[in-house]
Amino acid sequence: MKIMVQKYGGTSVAGLERMRKVLSRVRNGLDEGYKVIVVLSAMAGETNKLIGLANEFSAKPDPEEMDALVVNGENVSIALFSLLAKSEGIRAKSLQGWQIPITTTDAYMKARIISIDEARLRNLLEDHDVLVVAGFQGVDCKGRMTTLGRGGSDTTGVALAAAVKADVCEIYTDVDGVFTTDPRVCSAARKLDRICYDEMLELASSGSKVLQIRSVEFAKKFNVPVRVRSTFTDDPGTLVTQEDDAMMEDLVISGIAFDRDQCRVTVYKVKDKPGVAATIFGAIAAKRILVDMIIQNTSHDGYTDMTFTVSRGDLDQTLAILAGVGDEIGAESVQHDTNVAKVSVVGVGMRNHSGVASTMFQALCDENVNIKLIATSEIKITCLIDEKYVELAVRALHTAFGLDKELKAAC
Amino acid sequence: MKIMVQKYGGTSVAGLERMRKVLSRVRNGLDEGYKVIVVLSAMAGETNKLIGLANEFSAKPDPEEMDALVVNGENVSIALFSLLAKSEGIRAKSLQGWQIPITTTDAYMKARIISIDEARLRNLLEDHDVLVVAGFQGVDCKGRMTTLGRGGSDTTGVALAAAVKADVCEIYTDVDGVFTTDPRVCSAARKLDRICYDEMLELASSGSKVLQIRSVEFAKKFNVPVRVRSTFTDDPGTLVTQEDDAMMEDLVISGIAFDRDQCRVTVYKVKDKPGVAATIFGAIAAKRILVDMIIQNTSHDGYTDMTFTVSRGDLDQTLAILAGVGDEIGAESVQHDTNVAKVSVVGVGMRNHSGVASTMFQALCDENVNIKLIATSEIKITCLIDEKYVELAVRALHTAFGLDKELKAAC
Repeated sequence: MKIMVQKYGGTSVAGLERMRKVLSRVRNGLDEGYKVIVVLSAMAGETNKLIGLANEFSAKPDPEEMDALVVNGENVSIALFSLLAKSEGIRAKSLQGWQIPITTTDAYMKARIISIDEARLRNLLEDHDVLVVAGFQGVDCKGRMTTLGRGGSDTTGVALAAAVKADVCEIYTDVDGVFTTDPRVCSAARKLDRICYDEMLELASSGSKVLQIRSVEFAKKFNVPVRVRSTFTDDPGTLVTQEDDAMMEDLVISGIAFDRDQCRVTVYKVKDKPGVAATIFGAIAAKRILVDMIIQNTSHDGYTDMTFTVSRGDLDQTLAILAGVGDEIGAESVQHDTNVAKVSVVGVGMRNHSGVASTMFQALCDENVNIKLIATSEIKITCLIDEKYVELAVRALHTAFGLDKELKAAC
Repeated sequence: MKIMVQKYGGTSVAGLERMRKVLSRVRNGLDEGYKVIVVLSAMAGETNKLIGLANEFSAKPDPEEMDALVVNGENVSIALFSLLAKSEGIRAKSLQGWQIPITTTDAYMKARIISIDEARLRNLLEDHDVLVVAGFQGVDCKGRMTTLGRGGSDTTGVALAAAVKADVCEIYTDVDGVFTTDPRVCSAARKLDRICYDEMLELASSGSKVLQIRSVEFAKKFNVPVRVRSTFTDDPGTLVTQEDDAMMEDLVISGIAFDRDQCRVTVYKVKDKPGVAATIFGAIAAKRILVDMIIQNTSHDGYTDMTFTVSRGDLDQTLAILAGVGDEIGAESVQHDTNVAKVSVVGVGMRNHSGVASTMFQALCDENVNIKLIATSEIKITCLIDEKYVELAVRALHTAFGLDKELKAAC
């Protein structure tokens, strides 16, 4: 049995005409001899509408009932698409998370998939040619609906592909694929034909919104090649796959990412002793605030400064937390800066090439962009800069790393 | 454990303010020491919106997927109400049909309840004070969503009350209770304090829309006293309950029903031999058309005329069916009349009182209303008349049977 998974986002299912377009793509898969598992998001705007209602009904919505509410957006999509498919004679069936089941943890609003009943899916595929699965949702061991967090439909798609060992996994979206950087910021940006999981992970965590980061982790863990492509064009898109040694030499850097939703917080002159970092970040993590960059430089005279970045929406709460633990860590002061942004260069190629960092810093220097913080991972270098320079920096780096030309492959 | 079931219709849950009103009624139940099972319909208009979408997506919507679609209206209501209740500190939980489960047949769009897991409900009531159950829906043995047909939320409410042997079952609606006839047609109409199941059944099947007929059948079968009352006033409403011998003498007739959505079809001069009626009504039933009155008078010379009524929306299809079986039954002609309406007098008291029929016919005669057809059941007499006389007839009968005054009880 040849199986293809196709996942469509909210803009791809917004209304009858777009669903017809989706159906024609599904039909192409059938014509090629595949059984097709279609994963759908809620129609564009529906999830936000439900969340808006929840906030109207409760100042602090209960997460369990919130999930019971928002899953209905996807449930409407899959039933409507199944009606459409069946009316055209296709043997289709809609499936909510609990009907498969897609079993998850009970961490409502950010549940993680535990297991998917592969045998049942294969059984259903014996009698049906198209299974229409609700994205973003699952069911916990108590039989309550759960959701996987924003963008979770990508994860549903990849997880289903992994579970049934699908031959093809396509994530349809409203852009043509993964680009070297955001084309709205840099007109020289190029679509990549190929990118490897690690690069995609770093890009996703650095502001590229093409794929949900957890879906990429899933794809990497189960080695599911994922094709990201547009619902609205015939472009073959970008294949996200394993690193391929043969192509390693092609390109040092495969993409420039950036994120404006950042602010810097520095805790000055804390005692350089065990437990200080744990106290600070433990208190922040307890409030479920995501900390991005963390920098601690060498200490002077037994004191050090601790700097990190958080999303702007989390700043006030973060400052309140720091005020609370201030005595404990004996800090001199806490300062912050909201006019900052993050730019990153990402590429597995940098492992084998020296000089990536200096090229990056020089390119920024040439444009008079001051670097406020630097952080590195194995395949990424990130600089925090003044927000007003972000477009300039992205374009300069794009040119400096030779991305401004036709590309064959990225990794 | 004292248990109260409260069922609310679509107008009672349309928006935050109305849900607050529902919550205050639920709270009254809690204050009186009850555990409360709240059954909710979809917000007014939502079900029709989903059905409209389905018809847009498919000329002939698949019933199984149609049910998977329309249940989402109730699912949104119960999640929102649970969010509201929990935000006010009430231990509440939303439950879709499959989560209880309410097991039904797999007759999609008109499923019937097979069983309700009482043990699980009682278990949930140990840890929760309010269970918020989606009306109108269930799940079949294959794990597919089903719906109970229009107005099915009433049936859900009564069935839950029967399953957990609730102490109180209240059906909240937008009118004050059951009236002797429609107050919009007859200003002398009175609200009944009490009515028995059989009368309510006859009223429901004769055009009164206060309770879904199957919910009354359920209430009668399991002897669940049902109080019909308004969400928006403090009127105690009408108690629908067993016949009470002590009150039998009070009133001969408890209500006047009418139905304008009727048309008469007569098949002239069919052979008076076995199988003719079966041929006609078998062919009609095969198309799921509901036939209401059926009259066959004594035959002349081996021929008879067969008359029946159907809803106006079913007329064209009915005539087509009769044209199809015309040769088989050898009818001379088929005629129909769409300008007709049905008026019925209903009351268990007529069993012990002669003269109900003659009082009815005389009252119609006094107003010069010609009677086209007559049909009787044990506690109902129905006449088909010209539609233009329907208001006049209802008022005349209301007066003739002494309903135009303050009533204490009806049965």
